[in-house]
Amino acid sequence: MNIILVTATEVIDQQIILNDHRAVHIIKILQSEVGDSVRIGIIDGGKGTGLVVEVCKKRPFFVRLAVQISDCATVPVPEIDLILALPRPIMLKRILTQVAALGIGRIFLIHANRVEKSYWESGLLGEDQCREYLRQGLEQAIDTRMPQVEMHRRFKPFVEDVLPEISSGYLLRLLAHPDKHSNLAEVCAGGLGRILLAVGPEGGWLDFEVEMFQRQGFCCWSLGERILKVDTAVVALHAQITAMKEFLKGKMKRDCA
Amino acid sequence: MNIILVTATEVIDQQIILNDHRAVHIIKILQSEVGDSVRIGIIDGGKGTGLVVEVCKKRPFFVRLAVQISDCATVPVPEIDLILALPRPIMLKRILTQVAALGIGRIFLIHANRVEKSYWESGLLGEDQCREYLRQGLEQAIDTRMPQVEMHRRFKPFVEDVLPEISSGYLLRLLAHPDKHSNLAEVCAGGLGRILLAVGPEGGWLDFEVEMFQRQGFCCWSLGERILKVDTAVVALHAQITAMKEFLKGKMKRDCA
Repeated sequence: MNIILVTATEVIDQQIILNDHRAVHIIKILQSEVGDSVRIGIIDGGKGTGLVVEVCKKRPFFVRLAVQISDCATVPVPEIDLILALPRPIMLKRILTQVAALGIGRIFLIHANRVEKSYWESGLLGEDQCREYLRQGLEQAIDTRMPQVEMHRRFKPFVEDVLPEISSGYLLRLLAHPDKHSNLAEVCAGGLGRILLAVGPEGGWLDFEVEMFQRQGFCCWSLGERILKVDTAVVALHAQITAMKEFLKGKMKRDCA
Repeated sequence: MNIILVTATEVIDQQIILNDHRAVHIIKILQSEVGDSVRIGIIDGGKGTGLVVEVCKKRPFFVRLAVQISDCATVPVPEIDLILALPRPIMLKRILTQVAALGIGRIFLIHANRVEKSYWESGLLGEDQCREYLRQGLEQAIDTRMPQVEMHRRFKPFVEDVLPEISSGYLLRLLAHPDKHSNLAEVCAGGLGRILLAVGPEGGWLDFEVEMFQRQGFCCWSLGERILKVDTAVVALHAQITAMKEFLKGKMKRDCA
């Protein structure tokens, strides 16, 4: 935890009292004393410091902080959004935390033919549970912008009704699909802007699913011949898109100079 | 498990009897019957098929396969090697499996100031244990080339004595270090070839460690301002290097055309 994240409503008269895992972290890991400062951030708001004004190191643990937000700049929304065929719960946890750490705007959890129906019954899919795993990623990456999560339990209505509505917001729509290996640089050659990446279930998309995405303007792209687990693939795909965006930004700067 | 991996010594008279988790996989997941074929690979050897000639679905489970290796081509060694400050055991497991899936040649597990000494006592560091996690990655990625693992419990002797010996084998040596953000495209501009990537412990390298790597010709490079967990960082760094190599290969082809 590299930043203590709090909600705006938790801060009252510029003070906050913590008595959960965040208090335990301040007491046991940071070993902060009265007078010390910790890095603090308001979810979907600014960053600043929390001055420890009172601390109770025995049960019931608590820490009282005087909050000062110095960096009120709105955090920019990450330029990558993710459509993810719902993975099994243990993998979903890890993916939520990792993509929040890497930086993601919106996450659309969707159904697909190879998604086991039972995954939709997971307790993890509650809004609070998702936010908890996302928050761990933000705490790791020192970010305050909470990704938005939407769930779509039916594949066709998502692709046919939701995708056309949101598509205009993206310069590029990429479908991760191992059969079709195209060079990322060629796919990205169109320029910079928001990217919507769709990653399938273990076992991949079915042909009709690929065709439906393609009809919505998605380009197929893969990491190569190696078959990866979904959690490894999501991180690797995100990293490659980020690298290519950075490369293109650098190239544009050089071309302008 | 997308391929059943066996050692060359397990195959006798072109047959193999499996009675461990591989047999369970063939019986329960693949639900293979006599006459079916499964994809099989010899560790550090070729790939082919295993024809099920006998199967016992009750305890003690076993499967007898007639092995035919059709693809004897030596698998090329992946072009990335990894120096990794020893992470805590649960993270090491995940990293070994993930880098084996992504493709890695050699892994040097080393000590660093911020590595907890107790990590070196982990039962995971036995050769068999490491190979088990690496094998899971190979089974996922349908690869047979087992990465080599070396352990170096002292930092200075590794950097001062081992690195100079192996350095000539690499076109590029990269040190992941969040303070120094340089563009990967610029770092890679030197061309293509084997890359040695060094990734530090949680909390990062100390300054003197960075300086010692730099004296051995390492360039600092980071993924940006976001602080990532080591397992996320290793996958993301590997993916970005791979993307850049692919991009440069494509560029060279275009330039030659």
